Amino acid sequence: MSEDLSYPGGKLRLFVEAPLGEGARVVLEEGQAHYLLHVMRAKVGDRLNFFNGQDGEWVAEITETAKRTCTAVCARQLEPQTEVPDLWLCFAPVKKTPADYLTQKATELGVRVLQPIFTRRTIVSRVNTERMLANAVEAAEQSGRVSVPEIREAIALDKLLASWPAERRILFCDEAGDAPSIADALMTERGGSWAVFTGPEGGFDPAERALLRAQANVMAVSLGGRILRADTAALSALSVWQALTGDWR
Amino acid sequence: MSEDLSYPGGKLRLFVEAPLGEGARVVLEEGQAHYLLHVMRAKVGDRLNFFNGQDGEWVAEITETAKRTCTAVCARQLEPQTEVPDLWLCFAPVKKTPADYLTQKATELGVRVLQPIFTRRTIVSRVNTERMLANAVEAAEQSGRVSVPEIREAIALDKLLASWPAERRILFCDEAGDAPSIADALMTERGGSWAVFTGPEGGFDPAERALLRAQANVMAVSLGGRILRADTAALSALSVWQALTGDWR
Repeated sequence: MSEDLSYPGGKLRLFVEAPLGEGARVVLEEGQAHYLLHVMRAKVGDRLNFFNGQDGEWVAEITETAKRTCTAVCARQLEPQTEVPDLWLCFAPVKKTPADYLTQKATELGVRVLQPIFTRRTIVSRVNTERMLANAVEAAEQSGRVSVPEIREAIALDKLLASWPAERRILFCDEAGDAPSIADALMTERGGSWAVFTGPEGGFDPAERALLRAQANVMAVSLGGRILRADTAALSALSVWQALTGDWR
Repeated sequence: MSEDLSYPGGKLRLFVEAPLGEGARVVLEEGQAHYLLHVMRAKVGDRLNFFNGQDGEWVAEITETAKRTCTAVCARQLEPQTEVPDLWLCFAPVKKTPADYLTQKATELGVRVLQPIFTRRTIVSRVNTERMLANAVEAAEQSGRVSVPEIREAIALDKLLASWPAERRILFCDEAGDAPSIADALMTERGGSWAVFTGPEGGFDPAERALLRAQANVMAVSLGGRILRADTAALSALSVWQALTGDWR
């Protein structure tokens, strides 16, 4: 019998590269075909959802299966293409906490761009952006987003700031303690282009703090008196931003 | 040469069971002694900080070391005993995300009690609270807290609610979509006794939602339109609560 393929979080959604539209035929790549056929035990006639970051979300029906391939045809659009709020996360990667987790959570929290940054106290010297992208795709599929965040190559903080788009506001999570609280700072802000900046273990160094605070469109904020790990600080700042300034209201 | 023992996040702090006070002698248990002597390479004369959840935070100096033991004597109090805001986290444990991570983050975010709950859609049947406590101690040491959150034994949701303390307010993270946004709900709330409730994969079932919404002191809130994993929802709600209602302001 035909069915809607689903898992405990909801209906099965897959991100694909192919164009989507009424009658569009999608031949799934091998990894997705394997997942559908051998993990989800999909059969001809079963339904699932597709999105590609361009054409919204479509319900499709499986029309052909073979040992290693699977084809589905789009039936109708469920949702038009939309974008998450214009929020970037610029974060210093940390050794003990792989970027996987942060990528997953930031995707769920509706970030548009993930930008790893190298700072003076950053110990990590290489960021696996391919792996980050795979995590972002999986999190987008499960979170109901119809877009996948862009994963940028890691860049040194000073280089990033040297070509910073002037209109994009910086929410600088400053551990030094004299910044206003994030709630007071964001209370009257709604929408716009923003980027959250979080530092490595041990924080940004004094010169980096001065550089960040000297940016035209910066807002330095405090996340309270306890010391948060780098990834906790990032997820907290994204949450509070979405709650007050983003699309949770 | 004597030194202040430290790691990238700051000075070394250890949670101990012993009473602390001027001249108090603390004999470290074997695990901590091993860590100090063989990981941190501590020597007689080196300084570190102690807290025990009762007597505030003290700076102590190492006075004796042997192969497997280490003794330190408290010199002066750095900070009086304080408590985090009166916030509990009641969460349905999830299979794929070990409670370790959630415990660590919730401790940093200043939770006083961690209460695992069993719900109808909860697949996990056993929670390792000893391991949760070890994670909470480590996170308290690194976050600057002078208290360790209480880890309660897992309990069924209906049992927990049957003896719920009437004055403690419930912040119910409701995925069903018709609840007001968390920011609007908490905007004018400051302090008080609270508990954040988050469900398992797939959410609370309809009967559980009805039960929660029928509590005297409940506030159902929405965390936006994207589907958040159980642990993301918990960390987001704690962050927004601390930012608006807790001690971040």
